[in-house]
Amino acid sequence: MFIFLFLLVLEAKDGTIAVASAFPAHQEEIQDKDHKFIEEAIEEAYKGVECKDGYPFGAVIVRNDEVVVSCHNMVWINTDPTAHAEVTAIREASKKLNKVDLSDCEIYASCEPCPMCFGAIHLSRLKRVVYGAKAEAAVAIGFDPFIADALRGGTGLHQKACMEIKKVEGSGAEQVFQKTKHMFTLY
Amino acid sequence: MFIFLFLLVLEAKDGTIAVASAFPAHQEEIQDKDHKFIEEAIEEAYKGVECKDGYPFGAVIVRNDEVVVSCHNMVWINTDPTAHAEVTAIREASKKLNKVDLSDCEIYASCEPCPMCFGAIHLSRLKRVVYGAKAEAAVAIGFDPFIADALRGGTGLHQKACMEIKKVEGSGAEQVFQKTKHMFTLY
Repeated sequence: MFIFLFLLVLEAKDGTIAVASAFPAHQEEIQDKDHKFIEEAIEEAYKGVECKDGYPFGAVIVRNDEVVVSCHNMVWINTDPTAHAEVTAIREASKKLNKVDLSDCEIYASCEPCPMCFGAIHLSRLKRVVYGAKAEAAVAIGFDPFIADALRGGTGLHQKACMEIKKVEGSGAEQVFQKTKHMFTLY
Repeated sequence: MFIFLFLLVLEAKDGTIAVASAFPAHQEEIQDKDHKFIEEAIEEAYKGVECKDGYPFGAVIVRNDEVVVSCHNMVWINTDPTAHAEVTAIREASKKLNKVDLSDCEIYASCEPCPMCFGAIHLSRLKRVVYGAKAEAAVAIGFDPFIADALRGGTGLHQKACMEIKKVEGSGAEQVFQKTKHMFTLY
């Protein structure tokens, strides 16, 4: 049996990449899936500050459309500047799946990953990165502008790496920062 | 009492930065110190493969000329693709010193840090990065060329970040890879 798979790869001016299927039903299914998991990542972001574990960032790792781990920033609770949501999720998923190569998994991040996290995503070979808020939403409330360096003319990692990068629109991820900024202090 | 401190900041073509004091004795002292701690990082790199914890990379974090932690790559033993020597050292030093801001510390890495590790160094605010081997020495035996992206036209992190970056010459760090390559398999 032959299956013709027609993919439309779109690269926006800001460097984000979207892949659209030629089959509308399939495309809708992906959109629904992406919205569902991005919402879970956003919930984690809120949870992270509510329980005072860290900053408002969440990440979910998915395999075969099922959640492997759902994590948030743990910088304060772990006294660990590397415990961003994405790094924490990669560490936990690797442990859970008992492998360092996560090429059969996707990561959903409530916010555009910073260069450290993009590096970790590259090293763990995640095949797809879907994010909610643009880094600017975090930078606007005082986070280090370095967050934006991975995608925007920074590492160029996203161009070299064999991964699909997609921004989900209309997820409410941008609002997380304004809604939680009174709940934490930046270091 | 007035003390005139005269510093000569040198930037090499490859982007590495060296700071030379006008006082030869002080400069020698820094050189000796740098050689001592880079040697410890190299020892860790060998230890990492000998005990099968991970790949041949070591990192030492120093505060007030004293070792805070001495770590090696733990990717295999921890089943963690983010457990590079530098990330492991930052995590352990933060825990030991009970703070996420390591701006009073320096990091010594047996090899040029990769973009993920440079991101972690930036986030933990380490004031100084001293490394032994150029990334090419690791790439030559099969490591991901992405290692070299942080310093060479990659993130530009080293240009923006408030840290001194220095390469130690003649440390024997380049040989680590050729000498250990039969002891591990790349994933």
